[in-house]
Amino acid sequence: MIYITRREVFAASHRLYNPDLSEEENELIYDKCANPYGHGHNYILEVVVAGEIDPRTGYLLDLKELKKIIKENVIAKVDHRHFNFDVDFMKGIIPTAENICIGIWNQLAGKIPAGKLHSVKLYETENNYVEYKG
Amino acid sequence: MIYITRREVFAASHRLYNPDLSEEENELIYDKCANPYGHGHNYILEVVVAGEIDPRTGYLLDLKELKKIIKENVIAKVDHRHFNFDVDFMKGIIPTAENICIGIWNQLAGKIPAGKLHSVKLYETENNYVEYKG
Amino acid sequence: MIYITRREVFAASHRLYNPDLSEEENELIYDKCANPYGHGHNYILEVVVAGEIDPRTGYLLDLKELKKIIKENVIAKVDHRHFNFDVDFMKGIIPTAENICIGIWNQLAGKIPAGKLHSVKLYETENNYVEYKG
Amino acid sequence: MIYITRREVFAASHRLYNPDLSEEENELIYDKCANPYGHGHNYILEVVVAGEIDPRTGYLLDLKELKKIIKENVIAKVDHRHFNFDVDFMKGIIPTAENICIGIWNQLAGKIPAGKLHSVKLYETENNYVEYKG
Amino acid sequence: MIYITRREVFAASHRLYNPDLSEEENELIYDKCANPYGHGHNYILEVVVAGEIDPRTGYLLDLKELKKIIKENVIAKVDHRHFNFDVDFMKGIIPTAENICIGIWNQLAGKIPAGKLHSVKLYETENNYVEYKG
Amino acid sequence: MIYITRREVFAASHRLYNPDLSEEENELIYDKCANPYGHGHNYILEVVVAGEIDPRTGYLLDLKELKKIIKENVIAKVDHRHFNFDVDFMKGIIPTAENICIGIWNQLAGKIPAGKLHSVKLYETENNYVEYKG
Repeated sequence: MIYITRREVFAASHRLYNPDLSEEENELIYDKCANPYGHGHNYILEVVVAGEIDPRTGYLLDLKELKKIIKENVIAKVDHRHFNFDVDFMKGIIPTAENICIGIWNQLAGKIPAGKLHSVKLYETENNYVEYKG
Repeated sequence: MIYITRREVFAASHRLYNPDLSEEENELIYDKCANPYGHGHNYILEVVVAGEIDPRTGYLLDLKELKKIIKENVIAKVDHRHFNFDVDFMKGIIPTAENICIGIWNQLAGKIPAGKLHSVKLYETENNYVEYKG
Repeated sequence: MIYITRREVFAASHRLYNPDLSEEENELIYDKCANPYGHGHNYILEVVVAGEIDPRTGYLLDLKELKKIIKENVIAKVDHRHFNFDVDFMKGIIPTAENICIGIWNQLAGKIPAGKLHSVKLYETENNYVEYKG
Repeated sequence: MIYITRREVFAASHRLYNPDLSEEENELIYDKCANPYGHGHNYILEVVVAGEIDPRTGYLLDLKELKKIIKENVIAKVDHRHFNFDVDFMKGIIPTAENICIGIWNQLAGKIPAGKLHSVKLYETENNYVEYKG
Repeated sequence: MIYITRREVFAASHRLYNPDLSEEENELIYDKCANPYGHGHNYILEVVVAGEIDPRTGYLLDLKELKKIIKENVIAKVDHRHFNFDVDFMKGIIPTAENICIGIWNQLAGKIPAGKLHSVKLYETENNYVEYKG
Repeated sequence: MIYITRREVFAASHRLYNPDLSEEENELIYDKCANPYGHGHNYILEVVVAGEIDPRTGYLLDLKELKKIIKENVIAKVDHRHFNFDVDFMKGIIPTAENICIGIWNQLAGKIPAGKLHSVKLYETENNYVEYKG
């Protein structure tokens, strides 16, 4: 069993706000992350696939192919977008790093042609990141 | 003459759009940077001050003091904000990295208590940055 | 189950020296790390918490809260300090990266209000780091 | 149980090419990685050892010793070398990151004097890396 | 006057060897960099352009355009290539970082549509880099 | 004219304290940097040499030679040392980053065999650094 990782970067914005709560509760919970016009990040995404090496190629899965799968299923939908308005797979979901990470996992699960999706890690800032393993 | 640098990070969003141009021109010039809801970055800011060392302290300027000046004059106004709506010193200015960098220079010029503002560097992504020296 | 990580940095000094051993043995084991006046590092600390997402907030645990817990229980006690003299939770313990990492785990265990402390990673230099999972 | 990691860097070149396949198949699979004269990377290697702390030293294993083991068994054989021609432990093996990572694991397994080899991580670029845990 | 920088990465290999010198002299000067099959690096390239901001766009020069110019004139010629065999603009030149950096400058000079090429920086490893300003 | 840079890292400790001032003044100026037992950093040093390329070697100056000069004249004297007690060239000087940077410049000036010392940059933390150009 070997693990291969592809790292991608995208720029997006979001606002943390739960419409079921009052303005006061939102501000109490999310503080400046609830500012009405939103703010953004250079999100760093690391996708890990686990599996066996194909003896014919020496690859578990060509990282160029993994890159293409991530580009089509994730980056194309989130890069230079606003998570609260533009991203179909986040409709109705509060776009915390936790929820975005799971959303990205769901976009990728079932689309990896060799090996198995092992983890999705998402850095929101250089000090904060989340990881999901399904 | 010695140069001291303080690095700060802030998260903000922006949309590149010139209201004097047509939708087609904006899209041609700015491409996905003109998406209506905007997108964001973890901006990295480096402020350089040049001057002489004070023999009493061994400092050109206490970096904690420089940090405070940057926090009050820049970070407090831009962090978790949208450059097109929330930032007074960018009113009516297209928030490209170039223009934000000059805007930040103008916020800091005249507020450095020792030495002289030498340069402001602003990283928009890990691959793109701008620098202004007045 | 999701994993969230908060990264913090602190500057401290230490000396590696076992008082139960002779000078020669200390020098043999610790080499320049046993220099009498000590030396220091910019330690990088990564604290990982594992748990479920709260559907009301979209957070496992607000990273600002995790930051505050780390600041109060760890950073306030170690930043700009000497591990051999200033840090109560390292009294009588040789301050290797391994022992500091476990010391920090013990400071944090039981203080995480949601989820469960999963791991503590401590970088001593860009080439050396340790991790503890309880 | 504690985990300690040593990071080392080496510069090497390689060509991805399976001699059992046709030129067309090689180009289809490996694209520009099959260019005849090869290309290279600054590989970053992270070796993780797991074990118990020795109470006499406070170390699981002195990282200087781990560094020496990695230098002798890996770096001396691969640094400033071409994986297809110069590296004995890669003879007859397609030098993908996956296969190099396993090759390095095999060089180190059985040579760690305290604790147990836990994982070998190999970064080929800032966006691509692989990990092997035996 | 503002300075904008675009960073690009490429993987290449090279061998340091002066055919006008003896084997002994080459080994004395270049040591393991003269190994016959060559070795490689992930080169990091930073291209700086200086000029005035266009008030219509807020750009000195669209960084996407600068990226395209670098890709066509440099990256397409050097990425996944061997500097001693594959790169036309390095024919007959010893491919030290210094000479590659000047070679890249010459590829870009005269091709920047706005502003003026200010400097080319080339990182060969995380510890070694060179810069040329014409 | 070309510029070459060598980066080195060292771990040291220091205490900021001016013996000509009262305890109160020291605490006011240096805050936690004046803690009696000191604290430390992983200092990152970048030494830049400017000059012409030697056509015989393609080098301005072999970076291995520059590395050796830095090791002998700087690293050997400061690594795993306390600036207030162990470092001869800092005797009687308050070891701020500014003063250490100038001290290192003075250690290197006149010892560069080809080209000319151009600048010394010293990172004290990831957010604070100083530069001196003579």
